[in-house]
Amino acid sequence: MTISAEPSTTRVTKTQSLDRLFKPQVIAVVGASNSAEKAGGALMDVLRTFPGKLHPINSTADVISGRKAYKAVSDVPDAVDLAVIAVPPAAVADVLRDCGRAGVGAAIICTGGFAESGPEGAQLQAEVIAAAKETGIRLLGPNTSGFIVPALNLHATFMPGVHALPAGNLAIVAQSGGVNLASAFMAADLGVGISTAVGLGNAVDVGFADVLDHLAQDEDTTAIALHIEGVADGRALMAAIERASARKPVIALKVGKSDVGDFAQSHTGALAGNWAVARAGLAQAGAVVVDSLTDLVEAAAALSVTRLQPSKDPGVGIVTGQAGPGLIIVDTLTSARVKVPEVSGATTEKLSALLPPLTYQRNPVDTGRPGPTFVDVLAAVGDDDSIDAVLVYALQEGGTQTVVDALTNSSQRLSAVPTLMVTGGPEDDVVAQRDALKGSGIWTVATPDRGAFAMSAMIADAKTRHVKAAAPAPSVRVADRIPGHGALDENLGKDLLRSIGLRTPRRVACESRGDAEAAFKELNKPIVVKVLDSNVLHKSAAGGVKLGVASLADLAIALEETGRASSSAEARWLLEEQVGQGIELIIGGVNDPSFGAAVIIGAGGVDVEWGQPPVIRTAPLSTVEADEAIRQLPQALITALGPDVCAELGQVVFDVAAFLAAHPEVKELDINPLRSTPDGLIALDAVFMLDPAHTAPNFQEDLK
Amino acid sequence: MTISAEPSTTRVTKTQSLDRLFKPQVIAVVGASNSAEKAGGALMDVLRTFPGKLHPINSTADVISGRKAYKAVSDVPDAVDLAVIAVPPAAVADVLRDCGRAGVGAAIICTGGFAESGPEGAQLQAEVIAAAKETGIRLLGPNTSGFIVPALNLHATFMPGVHALPAGNLAIVAQSGGVNLASAFMAADLGVGISTAVGLGNAVDVGFADVLDHLAQDEDTTAIALHIEGVADGRALMAAIERASARKPVIALKVGKSDVGDFAQSHTGALAGNWAVARAGLAQAGAVVVDSLTDLVEAAAALSVTRLQPSKDPGVGIVTGQAGPGLIIVDTLTSARVKVPEVSGATTEKLSALLPPLTYQRNPVDTGRPGPTFVDVLAAVGDDDSIDAVLVYALQEGGTQTVVDALTNSSQRLSAVPTLMVTGGPEDDVVAQRDALKGSGIWTVATPDRGAFAMSAMIADAKTRHVKAAAPAPSVRVADRIPGHGALDENLGKDLLRSIGLRTPRRVACESRGDAEAAFKELNKPIVVKVLDSNVLHKSAAGGVKLGVASLADLAIALEETGRASSSAEARWLLEEQVGQGIELIIGGVNDPSFGAAVIIGAGGVDVEWGQPPVIRTAPLSTVEADEAIRQLPQALITALGPDVCAELGQVVFDVAAFLAAHPEVKELDINPLRSTPDGLIALDAVFMLDPAHTAPNFQEDLK
Repeated sequence: MTISAEPSTTRVTKTQSLDRLFKPQVIAVVGASNSAEKAGGALMDVLRTFPGKLHPINSTADVISGRKAYKAVSDVPDAVDLAVIAVPPAAVADVLRDCGRAGVGAAIICTGGFAESGPEGAQLQAEVIAAAKETGIRLLGPNTSGFIVPALNLHATFMPGVHALPAGNLAIVAQSGGVNLASAFMAADLGVGISTAVGLGNAVDVGFADVLDHLAQDEDTTAIALHIEGVADGRALMAAIERASARKPVIALKVGKSDVGDFAQSHTGALAGNWAVARAGLAQAGAVVVDSLTDLVEAAAALSVTRLQPSKDPGVGIVTGQAGPGLIIVDTLTSARVKVPEVSGATTEKLSALLPPLTYQRNPVDTGRPGPTFVDVLAAVGDDDSIDAVLVYALQEGGTQTVVDALTNSSQRLSAVPTLMVTGGPEDDVVAQRDALKGSGIWTVATPDRGAFAMSAMIADAKTRHVKAAAPAPSVRVADRIPGHGALDENLGKDLLRSIGLRTPRRVACESRGDAEAAFKELNKPIVVKVLDSNVLHKSAAGGVKLGVASLADLAIALEETGRASSSAEARWLLEEQVGQGIELIIGGVNDPSFGAAVIIGAGGVDVEWGQPPVIRTAPLSTVEADEAIRQLPQALITALGPDVCAELGQVVFDVAAFLAAHPEVKELDINPLRSTPDGLIALDAVFMLDPAHTAPNFQEDLK
Repeated sequence: MTISAEPSTTRVTKTQSLDRLFKPQVIAVVGASNSAEKAGGALMDVLRTFPGKLHPINSTADVISGRKAYKAVSDVPDAVDLAVIAVPPAAVADVLRDCGRAGVGAAIICTGGFAESGPEGAQLQAEVIAAAKETGIRLLGPNTSGFIVPALNLHATFMPGVHALPAGNLAIVAQSGGVNLASAFMAADLGVGISTAVGLGNAVDVGFADVLDHLAQDEDTTAIALHIEGVADGRALMAAIERASARKPVIALKVGKSDVGDFAQSHTGALAGNWAVARAGLAQAGAVVVDSLTDLVEAAAALSVTRLQPSKDPGVGIVTGQAGPGLIIVDTLTSARVKVPEVSGATTEKLSALLPPLTYQRNPVDTGRPGPTFVDVLAAVGDDDSIDAVLVYALQEGGTQTVVDALTNSSQRLSAVPTLMVTGGPEDDVVAQRDALKGSGIWTVATPDRGAFAMSAMIADAKTRHVKAAAPAPSVRVADRIPGHGALDENLGKDLLRSIGLRTPRRVACESRGDAEAAFKELNKPIVVKVLDSNVLHKSAAGGVKLGVASLADLAIALEETGRASSSAEARWLLEEQVGQGIELIIGGVNDPSFGAAVIIGAGGVDVEWGQPPVIRTAPLSTVEADEAIRQLPQALITALGPDVCAELGQVVFDVAAFLAAHPEVKELDINPLRSTPDGLIALDAVFMLDPAHTAPNFQEDLK
């Protein structure tokens, strides 16, 4: 066994700067038109406010939108940084070659009709990729609506209305141009401006990783929102998120929870992939992973204003002016497993001197209508050792100004504890308060449940940063490659598990009845008799398992009965010492084509708690990540297992993850059940599915 | 066995009309003040625009807010309909008695400090209840911020800012005054006005049921949103929802998913109760049950404009101008199990003549940028037999006006198919479009995921109405009362299950080893030997179960071993014929103190599908409701069971529900597992917990 110290991700994002794409001095619009109905006309109209040079390119017209038009980019006297292309798909490759001759740095291909449209389009796309390789031009698209950088008055898109989007600190990177624009307007509605908003389209060159690297360095960007449909190289994306999230919050939405692959592919040509594994990978890389577009924009808005310090499990203090919305906030936070700790006795003592007698003061702290002591209440809660962030709820009413005054005038007093304001009331009042507080680094949300959500997003970011601070994860190789194809037999599978440190029952693989009788004598009774046949995947259901075999007479019957489940005439058996009762778990894993190895941990029975999905993590894991994964299991299960078994389980998950990461040929692994016994955790079954052709991660072919 | 035809709910909502509360001509404010800092001052200020008569009551002042003040309500020369009371808690009962002498019809007690504050307040609350009984006055509160009816310029609340709320068709009934106001402002932000918005507070008299009955008759109200913290009489609430939802949509949020009982009780004195059972009951009664306050307001807003026809499983047609947001919509709808059916070949043919070749046309129908054929595309999709509602997505851009024109000018053409508009873009444009379409009965939502949510709420309402149209549910009584206390022994439990029609293994209860040997000869081998002891709840874990006993020698060992698990010196055993392998389910039930009997159905193993919570329904169930409940199980489980077993399972659920409804003394029932075998579904275990003192539903004491 060797421990590989190689980082899990070897692909380095293409280093050529995207400055000529995102900060051009000279732009050419290829396919520019005087007709507003055409994309080339819309582009000229939307780009009219660009303060740099803008040149229309058109093979026939002399003047477009009042500007001199050129026949080709290579005819333009200035050095063109960015070509925005809106010509039919078959003409794009030639345009790119002309751009190459003209020394253009980057191009946006707005045109659709490439890989998303079928085989013919895929061929055209391959030609575009070839032309980009020849010329070295960085490509955004094809099939994209482009991007905007409002602070530069740069709107490289055919979508109208974008001038209404204010400049600000939120960056959006969306697979879809429509979603890019929809998200930017959602942010604007919340009072959050845009630093850069990009639609990637088919992303044959510039992808999520490249743009993330660019935005990580962009001083105007304080948070990055990602809208992801499918991603060919999940590990490269993870590496880029890791780099970016070390500097600023990254928030990610993965579309494709349900089976929408067909429609998705027709849209940008991307495969939706395994949604749960992708989400696990994005979160582990450092992103706050959300469930909807609304969540994406609202979490990113909050995190663009306030980022908490890394913390294992931050505590939230809640101070309310009205108890009913406060109850909704506590319920929402607690359901999301955010800690709302009871404040200390010393804090309660301070509070009881500040507040009327009948109010609830343990956290949440219900002030009744906010009064003059509000600032002191906030300070008392914020100063409590268990509190890492404070959420204030107050409806817009007479006392609200007190709250705003408290928050804006006492920044020094409260600086150690980030605060989130949640309110409700007339829109104009809410907006005025939001703008007043934003200057003090305090974000305002207009409804109680969305306020709780924004806080939980901030908490998720703080927890992820804590986990990311741990030592890197190792991978463990047990052989160059595990030989075989399809299912491995259970005995070999258990040998593999033992070799990486897992406990398995004492057992003997038997080729005959005679072997079995001999083995029976060696093993402690009772034993379990199982047919040993990698073709029989569901042994129990097929009658291939017999428990409680304690006598030679039992054994004969058991061999006879289980042997009938064999797929071959010559049955083989596995005889195992029977393990006592105990709580059961399931540990499994896959090697995903995009995100590589992933480990899956779940409750093995329904008695403990119904209805929580399994925990998924991409592999390998650091020990801190493994422990964190265990903490996501149902609370009742954690309690039932106890701290020692949970620690052992963390080690098992760590070992399995390290193994899966080193063995991409293991397509699936299923340890079901892993049973908690007085002797420790024991793997009672092991199903390995091997695919020798499988190499993961399946890195996208590099363009350069 | 007798079948009781009694309706499950016998309590009738108090019939006295609430007109004097919600449509007063004359209002008195008791505790009126000239100080804006006091509730009595705020009340006078907020009520200033009331067009009827308004009289301040104050023991010392002669003039309040420029109006003549009286010492007592009984001094007022006019007949006072509504007294709004803001005096200290200890003074409230006397004020009510004075109101009684003056012939007042209704009162709002804004004052807090009653049951929510502890034993002393509970005593004061009891006195207030007594005074209300004496006088016959209908009471809202105590501990409430009151209510508003904007169309009547009636703002009976001390909360400022409420004049900004427009009149409209949405009614809100909230347990919390703060949530009531927050919700009303959230609706206003969406462009939806309020018919009536009420905060119930401690709800000692006027509760959810009374207000629902009032609003069901209110012509200005087209949808009712409920915010529920705790409810003492869940069945009365269900009956009122049933009546109201037959006329207009009812949407409900139940707070208390996590353990927030302490804080909840300090707020309105209500117990949070069993969240999952309450949600099941609310949905079965006819409400659309939602997960957050935002969901509540957005679902109610959409349903206040558009209600679909009842349908078992309506199909949604999606027409998009931009594919990316469309993909989010499809993903969100499909994940919520809303049907997005492929349209017929005939429809696709029509669409292919209307749309460019490369667009996706099977549903979703992606139009690219909306063009002149948009109206025909909508008609083609809406005319498809599988489509019951159409969702249109189009960003605010050049083509959007085409969409609005299509939707507003062709109402005749599209009238058979309700349409929901979803958009994005500059806020002013969105609002203008929303207002333009609302007149045509089309609701507009500003983001793709929230649009999908609004549609799924409309679908939920249509499905519930379909289920509600079925025959009423029966209850089945097997005895006057099942005798006993605590756990019932497994043999008696299985006898009970057999008596209501469930299949159980052939078995013999044995008092001695001799009994067991005799029984062994009668039963088909192998058998299962179980210790028969109602004190041993987890028999398997305790070693009290032995499978595969096939010989007398096995039997002797099995009796010996399982007997050790017995809690008494004289062990008893249950010998059962062993049942073959098969898919396992869990059927259970409880009798909830507020919502009465409820049945719980879940997957019994984790192999089929991880991570879906069990299905819960209040009992009894109609056959249609039972079938609908089965359809909510994980899809993979439904497929694995097949239609015949699912039908049988529906019958089992129906039988168990009917039994639980008739036997409130059954506190808990757990059939785990119910196994699907070639001989049908067989109950392999049965745990009954009895509570002879338990009567459910535990109806709140009637005030009248």
